[in-house]
Amino acid sequence: MDYFSRQKNTNIRLTLPVVCFVWQIAMIILFGVFIRYDEESDAHWVETKAHDNITSDIENDFYFRYPSFQDVHVMIFVGFGFLMTFLKRYSFGAVGFNFLIASFGLQWALLMQGWFHSLDPQTGKIFIGIESLINADFCVAGCLIAYGAVLGKVSPVQLLVMTLFGVTLFAVEEYIILNLLHARDAGGSMVIHTFGGYYGLSISRVLYRPNLHQSKRMQGSVYHSDTFAMIGTLFLWMFWPSFNSAITDHGDGQHRAVINTYLCLASTVLTTVAISSLSQKTGKLDMVHIQNSTLAGGVALGTAAEFMISPYGALIVGFFCGIISTMGYIFISPFLEKTLKIQDTCGIHNLHAMPGVIGGIVGAITAAAASESVYGKQGLINTFDFTGDFKDRTVLTQGGYQAAGMCVSIVFGVVGGAIVGSILKLPIWGDPADENCFDDEVYWEVREPESIPPILEYNNHMIHKQQDLSESNFSVEHCES
Amino acid sequence: MDYFSRQKNTNIRLTLPVVCFVWQIAMIILFGVFIRYDEESDAHWVETKAHDNITSDIENDFYFRYPSFQDVHVMIFVGFGFLMTFLKRYSFGAVGFNFLIASFGLQWALLMQGWFHSLDPQTGKIFIGIESLINADFCVAGCLIAYGAVLGKVSPVQLLVMTLFGVTLFAVEEYIILNLLHARDAGGSMVIHTFGGYYGLSISRVLYRPNLHQSKRMQGSVYHSDTFAMIGTLFLWMFWPSFNSAITDHGDGQHRAVINTYLCLASTVLTTVAISSLSQKTGKLDMVHIQNSTLAGGVALGTAAEFMISPYGALIVGFFCGIISTMGYIFISPFLEKTLKIQDTCGIHNLHAMPGVIGGIVGAITAAAASESVYGKQGLINTFDFTGDFKDRTVLTQGGYQAAGMCVSIVFGVVGGAIVGSILKLPIWGDPADENCFDDEVYWEVREPESIPPILEYNNHMIHKQQDLSESNFSVEHCES
Amino acid sequence: MDYFSRQKNTNIRLTLPVVCFVWQIAMIILFGVFIRYDEESDAHWVETKAHDNITSDIENDFYFRYPSFQDVHVMIFVGFGFLMTFLKRYSFGAVGFNFLIASFGLQWALLMQGWFHSLDPQTGKIFIGIESLINADFCVAGCLIAYGAVLGKVSPVQLLVMTLFGVTLFAVEEYIILNLLHARDAGGSMVIHTFGGYYGLSISRVLYRPNLHQSKRMQGSVYHSDTFAMIGTLFLWMFWPSFNSAITDHGDGQHRAVINTYLCLASTVLTTVAISSLSQKTGKLDMVHIQNSTLAGGVALGTAAEFMISPYGALIVGFFCGIISTMGYIFISPFLEKTLKIQDTCGIHNLHAMPGVIGGIVGAITAAAASESVYGKQGLINTFDFTGDFKDRTVLTQGGYQAAGMCVSIVFGVVGGAIVGSILKLPIWGDPADENCFDDEVYWEVREPESIPPILEYNNHMIHKQQDLSESNFSVEHCES
Repeated sequence: MDYFSRQKNTNIRLTLPVVCFVWQIAMIILFGVFIRYDEESDAHWVETKAHDNITSDIENDFYFRYPSFQDVHVMIFVGFGFLMTFLKRYSFGAVGFNFLIASFGLQWALLMQGWFHSLDPQTGKIFIGIESLINADFCVAGCLIAYGAVLGKVSPVQLLVMTLFGVTLFAVEEYIILNLLHARDAGGSMVIHTFGGYYGLSISRVLYRPNLHQSKRMQGSVYHSDTFAMIGTLFLWMFWPSFNSAITDHGDGQHRAVINTYLCLASTVLTTVAISSLSQKTGKLDMVHIQNSTLAGGVALGTAAEFMISPYGALIVGFFCGIISTMGYIFISPFLEKTLKIQDTCGIHNLHAMPGVIGGIVGAITAAAASESVYGKQGLINTFDFTGDFKDRTVLTQGGYQAAGMCVSIVFGVVGGAIVGSILKLPIWGDPADENCFDDEVYWEVREPESIPPILEYNNHMIHKQQDLSESNFSVEHCES
Repeated sequence: MDYFSRQKNTNIRLTLPVVCFVWQIAMIILFGVFIRYDEESDAHWVETKAHDNITSDIENDFYFRYPSFQDVHVMIFVGFGFLMTFLKRYSFGAVGFNFLIASFGLQWALLMQGWFHSLDPQTGKIFIGIESLINADFCVAGCLIAYGAVLGKVSPVQLLVMTLFGVTLFAVEEYIILNLLHARDAGGSMVIHTFGGYYGLSISRVLYRPNLHQSKRMQGSVYHSDTFAMIGTLFLWMFWPSFNSAITDHGDGQHRAVINTYLCLASTVLTTVAISSLSQKTGKLDMVHIQNSTLAGGVALGTAAEFMISPYGALIVGFFCGIISTMGYIFISPFLEKTLKIQDTCGIHNLHAMPGVIGGIVGAITAAAASESVYGKQGLINTFDFTGDFKDRTVLTQGGYQAAGMCVSIVFGVVGGAIVGSILKLPIWGDPADENCFDDEVYWEVREPESIPPILEYNNHMIHKQQDLSESNFSVEHCES
Repeated sequence: MDYFSRQKNTNIRLTLPVVCFVWQIAMIILFGVFIRYDEESDAHWVETKAHDNITSDIENDFYFRYPSFQDVHVMIFVGFGFLMTFLKRYSFGAVGFNFLIASFGLQWALLMQGWFHSLDPQTGKIFIGIESLINADFCVAGCLIAYGAVLGKVSPVQLLVMTLFGVTLFAVEEYIILNLLHARDAGGSMVIHTFGGYYGLSISRVLYRPNLHQSKRMQGSVYHSDTFAMIGTLFLWMFWPSFNSAITDHGDGQHRAVINTYLCLASTVLTTVAISSLSQKTGKLDMVHIQNSTLAGGVALGTAAEFMISPYGALIVGFFCGIISTMGYIFISPFLEKTLKIQDTCGIHNLHAMPGVIGGIVGAITAAAASESVYGKQGLINTFDFTGDFKDRTVLTQGGYQAAGMCVSIVFGVVGGAIVGSILKLPIWGDPADENCFDDEVYWEVREPESIPPILEYNNHMIHKQQDLSESNFSVEHCES
């Protein structure tokens, strides 16, 4: 068995280029058939403006959403990418594969979300604008979360397959939750984090590696890799207000979502530090907690950020998320690995799955508790979009649908992950052997040989010196550095 | 004495969690009592709009200030955090404690600033919006500046105490300077940098450690830690135009503050490089100067950025700040340490205190020299807010009040720092011994043992090899790398 | 010869400070004479508003362009700076000199571009606003691209000279291309990337070092330096949509440019990965390709981003750019070095010059193929600015002028670079000897001795260990570090 595994073929020189080329060509064809500029990004905008009596270009949705879009974009590529660089020797894979699958995923997401949400029935086209780009980034986030669970244990080809199916499943569950159930989920507690979390955990369960301990030497962090990871943490943390407000209503909706998320995350930091300190004999802090659990508040406010949860409500959510998420790293992750055989490299259960579920519950409760006195009559209608088919829905009913939405995201994550995991188990994807996990050597040209970090040259130099010393005589007398 | 100090108890397993929990709970209660959404972030915004004849959501203050807010937010967490990672072995403490105290500080700042500036007398509530968040971040900046002086020498509990009092003092001096004296200080040369600088220096003086040389081995930088620090430098430098313009007047006020700060900082870089090169025998540059003094121009334009200082005026301010700040690192810092016993880890005297005072003076002069011909009649009123009680104030008087404001910030910094320093001297806060300063080992779980950096494994491996070699015979013949 | 080169004088203690001081003082004087706030950043804005019937401050151009400006600013300082940190021992030079020359260049660019584009004939003044700052950053980008070709081989004084002339040439070619030929080039495929690329390559050719192999030991990357470089890559990649849309038309122009660039870059990532994988025996990826070629799509869409190239058109451009750029690194760079004697440290030929030319061609074709049915009558006029002297120009003619513009940029780059290269060959600029290239030691105070990275201390420690070992069995007796 051990011998067999060592023989695993990680040559991806055929599969990776083929997948990249074929899928990218498919994207081009499908975009050619389906995707067009929407009226705010089309050169006919000048006519649209005249027709709709829009007085100024500043009314273009672009100016409401572009700053948030760029922040979200940074979270996807720098935030998620660098958060995963904490492993001592998997930074290239963390940042690089994150880059690859996000770039593919966002194209596929534009198509999938377009077909489900905005296919124009008359023309058969999907019209995209800045909000579509944000939604595509959001969709990709779900797959990047899942990547966290299998980090270091899969090949880039497997990641692309995982992204293809992940985006597909995402678009369907999102359609069910947002359109059919008419649940609200602007920051994606359910749609993004709960789904993405369980999708990844489920895949990781199916791909369980009983002999993963053979890569133990590669599994920790080193000082600078932990510092790199803090870049990811901070950009996620700082821009999370933009994440939760990027597609909320213009005006007070965006404004309120920012305030709530800002406060919630601040609160999370303090309780994360508290529990982290409590967990160690002399009160020392653990970088794993600081890097991850400090973000749990942002996840948990994904649904309720746009609601009138009130500033202290946001603080309370953050308070408990910091505690629960940090405790997850201390108690639940080891349990999941030992008992449920779920190997979760980045602890996405503690950072996304659990806080996502909390977010779904908080959203359901806050929705059910909404009242006209707090929101105002029109405010209530705007916030929950009680228009059209849903104009007679009560807040209590809305709360119920919110809860239902959360169940849908869990089911899609778990079941979808199990199926996709089975596909990824096929021995054709070039995944690494158990003793080669968490090692960039497998898929990257690394200039220094494995486990001989930056100072190779100097050390060689030293060895030679010693050789000289040794060779010259049996007792060295003039040794200079 | 030395023995005693070695015995210092740095166990913070009780104090840190207790402080975090109790203070966070206090925040929740106080927010529950006092903090509410303002009318632009409340769901009643739709009614406000109708009532005030606001035609478009884009008029919501959110869209004027959100991009600047996010830039300021990045400065606080990535900028200040990474700027302090330059020490070879204190990056976790730099980024991590910065993260912790900023997260607490911004909550406390919302309350303190709210009570002083915007407590609604009728409802007894504080109404917050995007501008409040920016002001909270600003307030926190003062404490992070102070952190720079004591970096590596205090415990996280001390930092939290320092932040609690720092924010409190800040809110009071800010109230005196901006409201009572009616001085202008949009980018906080006086209110933020002068106060924060002297607050930190004063604390550092009280906490003077005569035996700090025992930590000398930890006090320098290494190659990659200096590179990390440049991330902090650049994000501060690039986003400083947003810092100085974040709360200035809509329209020309924000526009002008950006242009002035952009130019001033560019000029600072050239003179910093010049003096740094002059200070070394062969003209080599010193990373300490590049990392810090290049920012002095932004500090010094904090007050005058919104004034009609004119583009070449901004360049002149930057020109002198680069010179003075770099010379500060070369001449003044050693003097402060030897003569005044002020140990200033990051050199905040050169980056914040001195340039802050310069900024106050520049502001006073520019205000006193303002004229209707340059500003226009209404422009003058808008820029200096000569309305209400202050509608008859002349620019000369304004200049005087500006200067008075600067004195207030110095006094608050020095006196406040002395008092808070005395509190921090109590032997209950878990600060490190003199020979354990600048070392993450004390408060963080560091995976590799102290002073054995990333390549532990390989080196161990090498040692074993050598051991084998040594054991095998007296002359080494088969040494492989 | 070798001896001579070893004797090269890299002392810049006189030249660097003198250049910095004199040039900065010149900037101050010229700014004093020429540069003023434009009407949107002047305190008279309140009168301008009244006069022009502008109803809201949000109509100030500041709010249309500031978010994009800050993104561009990040690209210039963090993007270009960190992209070049990949060398194992030239990170200070990469980030630091990038910082220096950009800070000088942007001031000089405001003057040069002002004189050519916006000198007010009546007052003899240049009025600047946010768009001027963006254009100055753009102009600087051309010089930073050129820096990539000579990275590690020139002194900071040479870089400043290169920037002085580079900005000057840029302003002239930009004037010819945009004003005289009336070509469109919002993202600067021609004006910035083609010019900057050939300018740098041409200089590098003139400064050819036949014995550069003597610095071979310093020429590679190490693990963490490659990770630092990915910070540069990602910030360039993420913010490229802002780069290409920063100065396009308000409304649909900016909106469309963002969508096109976003899509194009995503497509580039996939084909870059495919070719990179194909180029290695076992399909491993090469960080050089991922760091650079993934950006080629952004370069190539610089001209056409604002046109109705359609989403799938953008994907196609990205598709081919990823292929061509990566192949450039594999095949063309070695050829250029061996045959044409062009030593191109960062491979700017593959990242800027070639994709820039592609961008020019794509722009010419897309312009020539534009039609009223696609753009709308007014849309066509707005997009190509067919007003004033150019109101009768046809799209076909426009295509021709676009192509002519590309030729102008190549000629300016090649010829300008040859001349400037000759100036830089003078033996007065303090450039490093052939065996000291790519080494920060030459121009920076580096705390650890050359090629003895971070762990010096530990190694000393190790030596002592060995001493113990050796002592025990008769060998080493007096080994001091």
